[in-house]
Amino acid sequence: MNLRTPGPIPIPDEILQASAKQMINHRGPEFQDLVNNITQGLKQVYRTKNDVLTLTGSGTGSMEAAIVNTLSPGDTVLSVSIGVFGDRFAQIAEAYGARVEKLTFPWGTAIDPNVLKETLEKMPNVKAVLVTHNETSTGVTNDLESVGKVIKDADKLLIVDAISSLSSLPFYTDDWGCDVVAAGSQKGWMVAPGLSFLSMSERAWSAFKESRMPKFYWDVGKAKSYLDRGQTPWTPAIAIMYGLEVSLKMLIDEGLDNVYDRHKAMGDKVREGVNNIGLELFAAESCASNTVTSVHIPDSIEAKELLGSLRTDYDVVIAGGQGSLDGKIMRIGHMGYVPDKDLTEALGSLKSGLDKAGFQPKYSGARG
Amino acid sequence: MNLRTPGPIPIPDEILQASAKQMINHRGPEFQDLVNNITQGLKQVYRTKNDVLTLTGSGTGSMEAAIVNTLSPGDTVLSVSIGVFGDRFAQIAEAYGARVEKLTFPWGTAIDPNVLKETLEKMPNVKAVLVTHNETSTGVTNDLESVGKVIKDADKLLIVDAISSLSSLPFYTDDWGCDVVAAGSQKGWMVAPGLSFLSMSERAWSAFKESRMPKFYWDVGKAKSYLDRGQTPWTPAIAIMYGLEVSLKMLIDEGLDNVYDRHKAMGDKVREGVNNIGLELFAAESCASNTVTSVHIPDSIEAKELLGSLRTDYDVVIAGGQGSLDGKIMRIGHMGYVPDKDLTEALGSLKSGLDKAGFQPKYSGARG
Repeated sequence: MNLRTPGPIPIPDEILQASAKQMINHRGPEFQDLVNNITQGLKQVYRTKNDVLTLTGSGTGSMEAAIVNTLSPGDTVLSVSIGVFGDRFAQIAEAYGARVEKLTFPWGTAIDPNVLKETLEKMPNVKAVLVTHNETSTGVTNDLESVGKVIKDADKLLIVDAISSLSSLPFYTDDWGCDVVAAGSQKGWMVAPGLSFLSMSERAWSAFKESRMPKFYWDVGKAKSYLDRGQTPWTPAIAIMYGLEVSLKMLIDEGLDNVYDRHKAMGDKVREGVNNIGLELFAAESCASNTVTSVHIPDSIEAKELLGSLRTDYDVVIAGGQGSLDGKIMRIGHMGYVPDKDLTEALGSLKSGLDKAGFQPKYSGARG
Repeated sequence: MNLRTPGPIPIPDEILQASAKQMINHRGPEFQDLVNNITQGLKQVYRTKNDVLTLTGSGTGSMEAAIVNTLSPGDTVLSVSIGVFGDRFAQIAEAYGARVEKLTFPWGTAIDPNVLKETLEKMPNVKAVLVTHNETSTGVTNDLESVGKVIKDADKLLIVDAISSLSSLPFYTDDWGCDVVAAGSQKGWMVAPGLSFLSMSERAWSAFKESRMPKFYWDVGKAKSYLDRGQTPWTPAIAIMYGLEVSLKMLIDEGLDNVYDRHKAMGDKVREGVNNIGLELFAAESCASNTVTSVHIPDSIEAKELLGSLRTDYDVVIAGGQGSLDGKIMRIGHMGYVPDKDLTEALGSLKSGLDKAGFQPKYSGARG
């Protein structure tokens, strides 16, 4: 299967094999080594001196952890959304009793830092700002450096969903002033889903001390005190940690800048390929993501049928749209180690599938 | 390594191999088959017609899910505790604002159903009762059938932590009237940690509708609506689910009654072996667990040194005591498929380790 969804992604063999190792005692010295190695590797990829905690759960779990560990019911937060996952961040904050103010930008576009700046100036009560770095549902990457600067200039807590960016796209936790950064194992980290990560700055720990949202499983205070002795409070997803230890070594050995360049090249290739087929990209070019490419599904084509035929006839799995984009876009994932031929074949299959479905490109000269 | 902790436990090879399969789309038909198969298997092992949901997280996550999905802040709950995990259930309920009444029994003993009955008669306001089926920290199994009857006669919601019992010890969700039952993958299910399970009776679903504790990640309403279309709300721990599909087939093919008998035989063997060494069992014989055996550490022996030497000299990993039992007991796990020789060797190593440490059994004739 040529799995071209934006997570889970194909896992390199050596990582799969590492995940199949036998269990160990999570209260013993072997586990201490494992979790300490992983924590060091995570900090390198996060590019941070902050604490980075490994939590057992999906990426959404780390988003919830980010909220409940820093906020109290009644706190005002500004949720900046450019898609489904930005909206989810707001929903979590609302579920736990925050007063959520919303700033949304049209799906397919990025946050405008100037608009954000003006908004924050009008909202002195905002305690924290929730930002998605890379919006998987629309294939858009926010300029987190500029966005972060605005939020830091306004002296707010910066809480970031970096689930589909961190380990693939340039990310600088400390340089960009990110207080809390959530990530998930099944993305560019190249391991199975089931682990999520959370970094906490000193400012975030101060917020933690004041935070009164209820928490137990996601309590990062517990996670930190156990990590200090090489453990986790609850029995962790050891097999996925085995894989992660290998994948972190691969990422760091390759060099993070090279990893970013490779993702940029994959993004360029897919966008060019999609253009050549005569399809229209959904995300604005200036902010198109290098981990997932969103593509308009032509009016003449039934999304479900196209994606179904790609799967059954070509063994290529491309994701559909989420929420209001269901049936309107498709999303091609390109994170992790993707052999060039897999992208070439996916694009070729997409062209063939569209041909079969009778697609006629709008633009003459396309598909040249 | 002869891993004799009460979870994680050694995983059979075929399950390890299954867990190393390549990723699939968690929104596609292959995943639908996987989650539907697993759900059917889980229901068989739970012996229930209730919904059983698969959540990505540690067992403690399913305990939290049990609480936040059925209760509201201010609700009175009775927490019946015989050890660390019973206390944890109370802590979770407290963290989310429940009024927690506590009924505790001495560590090493089981719940006395008559005392529970009297207690409930004095507490008409109790909405739900939190019960641990098998208390991993003390090696005690409660008589959940009798306990459940008392709770059902009192017309209370019965919320059960069955993490270290279900799939190993006799368990009858429906016959015993269990409304909510939490379980975790790294125990007798014989897979890696990272998945937890939760069953919900009709009464539990009614409680869910009224429940006002905040929730998002653990929201079983979302889990149920996604499961109805063969999905999970958040990206699930697919690799562990691959393993679970195989382990459920093994359990069901063997026959649950045979699985229970096998665990009974392992419990008997370990208790007899420990007695023969001249050590004293911690749990009362009438309620000693067949998944984990707790053993007094003789006064003359330093627990940390003994367990350390068993690990380094004999490659046998036995767990220490938790909480106030730290240094006072050791716990020998015997859940899942344990080759007889592994138990024999563990007991032999324990005897040798004690000999080396200069242990003299109290009872003449012991160690015959």
